[in-house]
Amino acid sequence: MATSTHLHLPIPPRLSASASPTARLRASASLAHPLLLSRLRLAAPRPPRARRAMSVTVRSSLIDPDGGALVDLVAAPERRAALRAEAEALPRVRLAPVDVEWAHVLAEGWASPLRGFMREHEYLQSLHFNCIRLPDGAGVVNMSLPIVLAIGDREKEEIGASPDVALQGPDGGILAILRRVEIYPHNKEERIARTWGTTAPGLPYVDEAIASAGNWLIGGDLEVLEPIKYNDGLDHYRLSPQQLRNEFDKRGADAVFAFQLRNPVHNGHALLMNDTRRRLLEMGFKNPILLLHPLGGFTKADDVPLPVRMEQHSKVLEDGVLDPETTIVSIFPSPMHYAGPTEVQWHAKARINAGANFYIVGRDPAGMGHPTEKRDLYNPDHGKKVLSMAPGLEKLNILPFKVAAYDTVAKKMAFFEPSRSKDFLFISGTKMRAFAKSGENPPDGFMCPGGWKVLVDYYNSLQTEEAAVAPV
Amino acid sequence: MATSTHLHLPIPPRLSASASPTARLRASASLAHPLLLSRLRLAAPRPPRARRAMSVTVRSSLIDPDGGALVDLVAAPERRAALRAEAEALPRVRLAPVDVEWAHVLAEGWASPLRGFMREHEYLQSLHFNCIRLPDGAGVVNMSLPIVLAIGDREKEEIGASPDVALQGPDGGILAILRRVEIYPHNKEERIARTWGTTAPGLPYVDEAIASAGNWLIGGDLEVLEPIKYNDGLDHYRLSPQQLRNEFDKRGADAVFAFQLRNPVHNGHALLMNDTRRRLLEMGFKNPILLLHPLGGFTKADDVPLPVRMEQHSKVLEDGVLDPETTIVSIFPSPMHYAGPTEVQWHAKARINAGANFYIVGRDPAGMGHPTEKRDLYNPDHGKKVLSMAPGLEKLNILPFKVAAYDTVAKKMAFFEPSRSKDFLFISGTKMRAFAKSGENPPDGFMCPGGWKVLVDYYNSLQTEEAAVAPV
Repeated sequence: MATSTHLHLPIPPRLSASASPTARLRASASLAHPLLLSRLRLAAPRPPRARRAMSVTVRSSLIDPDGGALVDLVAAPERRAALRAEAEALPRVRLAPVDVEWAHVLAEGWASPLRGFMREHEYLQSLHFNCIRLPDGAGVVNMSLPIVLAIGDREKEEIGASPDVALQGPDGGILAILRRVEIYPHNKEERIARTWGTTAPGLPYVDEAIASAGNWLIGGDLEVLEPIKYNDGLDHYRLSPQQLRNEFDKRGADAVFAFQLRNPVHNGHALLMNDTRRRLLEMGFKNPILLLHPLGGFTKADDVPLPVRMEQHSKVLEDGVLDPETTIVSIFPSPMHYAGPTEVQWHAKARINAGANFYIVGRDPAGMGHPTEKRDLYNPDHGKKVLSMAPGLEKLNILPFKVAAYDTVAKKMAFFEPSRSKDFLFISGTKMRAFAKSGENPPDGFMCPGGWKVLVDYYNSLQTEEAAVAPV
Repeated sequence: MATSTHLHLPIPPRLSASASPTARLRASASLAHPLLLSRLRLAAPRPPRARRAMSVTVRSSLIDPDGGALVDLVAAPERRAALRAEAEALPRVRLAPVDVEWAHVLAEGWASPLRGFMREHEYLQSLHFNCIRLPDGAGVVNMSLPIVLAIGDREKEEIGASPDVALQGPDGGILAILRRVEIYPHNKEERIARTWGTTAPGLPYVDEAIASAGNWLIGGDLEVLEPIKYNDGLDHYRLSPQQLRNEFDKRGADAVFAFQLRNPVHNGHALLMNDTRRRLLEMGFKNPILLLHPLGGFTKADDVPLPVRMEQHSKVLEDGVLDPETTIVSIFPSPMHYAGPTEVQWHAKARINAGANFYIVGRDPAGMGHPTEKRDLYNPDHGKKVLSMAPGLEKLNILPFKVAAYDTVAKKMAFFEPSRSKDFLFISGTKMRAFAKSGENPPDGFMCPGGWKVLVDYYNSLQTEEAAVAPV
């Protein structure tokens, strides 16, 4: 695609000069929004940590990560040489780009308490229950997508009885060691059916990562040699869950609300995010921080590419549609499954690990059109319903998205009012792309001008590229 | 099929003359079998009930039903006339035979705490999580199969805004009222994919009950006018969960172990059941009772029909292969899904409601061949693995089935010993059917002679019938 590889991006998420220890605030019931109160559970108070002599302990009121502690699977720098030498003698598995994204996700603890690609007992629980049991009767954590690594017959044979395996990146470099491995059958049909609720051909993630993958899965404990980088000019946006937590604490956040997206931000999204902040303030929170968290891994071919989206998001903040003082923009490194109600749980669970205790969910999250039928693949309401009932997510406050549409009277994006439905215009992603491709402007107030220009430029560049490769 | 409709069946499950209040026994750790101990949880001790003056309270040490109390949805006799009159004025839904079986299951509380066909929030939890959340944070109960009622567009229109609906049997008689109904879309593809892990054509339950069913599901609270009977000479075998609990208490059971089956009992099954009893005695239980619990609802065409199986089971008890004093034979009214690891959870959960705290699970429970590929539909080990990790089944002790096979040296069914595998002969269901059809005897000791004769007679009658309808 003809996107510039040298985008001029804004500064990394800002550090507030006035960071201070956070106070633990309780929601004021009298002010609370009824929608919120129905599921409101604040982060459980934690016992004060024992103070070490001569050190200042920064206390955090953020929600606990799943399993109690953030997993960090990146080897300490002083171990790397030894690990590299060890890896030389091990059987090897070559990762596909999507596998590297999952290794990244695992290494930084987005999937805490998972410590590597799933072994079979984890895979089966994920597939059947969308959650995994913690040891010693400590309940369950949500885990709705199988995070697995496929290998073929030849690799299985080469591994033989070796307990450990070296993982290579797509270019052959050693990325990680997988320890105490377990190899078990990869029943693709069953995995697809239980994850997507269909086996129709044309599911983007299946085509990318499953259809031609091997017939075995290999699980084990992951140890990544060094932090995974993409060198695409966007790595400074890729904050780990721990880095995000540090940032929220520095800013003195007493509530963190996450917004997952894989599309450009229009003013309807912004309305929702700003309204959420207003409601959290009404509830008594003093400093709610927004985590604007675009997905950065694999997406389908007709989605807007990550660099373009990041530039668009930066314009939205520059234009003041969102407030930079109370917003952190960061990239969520997961690949996209387009698995609707199953996937939205993963999107929410991962943000708990990054410190978010409020999660905004819209219409048809992680959904798409059915690959072979003229309908949505998922019922558009199932995402928020499933999310609100999902095991392991009880501690997360789910904020159902009100539907925003273009109000042709007020000439701006507004919450849809059924009583005057004829005044509202719904602008779908497809319609938005059609506008941008044709150079036609959307209605005033649909998106900030700076953000819109980014999209128009992108689609122009695509058309120029298409023209260049068209047959003479 | 040419099975006799007037079978001479044995007496109903026997009442022991020496019934006495049960003592609550703890397992003796020093005697316990390691396999059992790994998951051993006895029924939680319950606080003594307040005694009513002038009545003797029979205390039960049986496991609590799911949700704490057994659901009973059969109307009291004095209400029936009024309900019948009320039903006359309601919109109607005609049930298919399988729907009646589910109404039966619901009415007697096998699916406790479910109080009717699922509403959408229950359906979604079942489909995605295989469990349903109890109110007030009281945990979850297992519920792996959607128990739903499908209707078509015409019925949906006729129901309109009526809160209540009358349910008719296949012959048109009023069976029940469904109250405070909720109608929601029946996405068959998604239901099938998530329940079976495949959408391949040829799944028996799908062909019977889903493929031609309507595009809507209707949930609500069920009130059945009177106990559901089949008048097939087997109704005395259809004990409700409450009747089974009463029977276990009368016999003074201090452990109840359930054996689900839909096939004739051979000596390998019997070996397993008798060995389980021995192990429970070793663990310190004084009076373990076996619930031999054949499934009585819909089964696929080539399974042995229920009346033949019941006659075969009665011979097994008559021939002394199982001990009538410590065995209760009863019919489980559920239809069969053949949904492997998903369905085995339902089979286990329903038996908790009937008082069983031990559940025997074999190879490939509720499995079958893949309908379009030459392989098992499910990994034969997944059933026991999924069952052992299933949410809501923590209180049930899962007893994994050792594999039994015909020992050609000892000339009897015995636990398979890998060290002398050449001495063992595996006799599959298909091979057993082939023996019975051809009139050839299986090896001595495979099945008791009385039980085998039942099968031979059944297959002979089938062949006679086939010959009679063969083209001239």
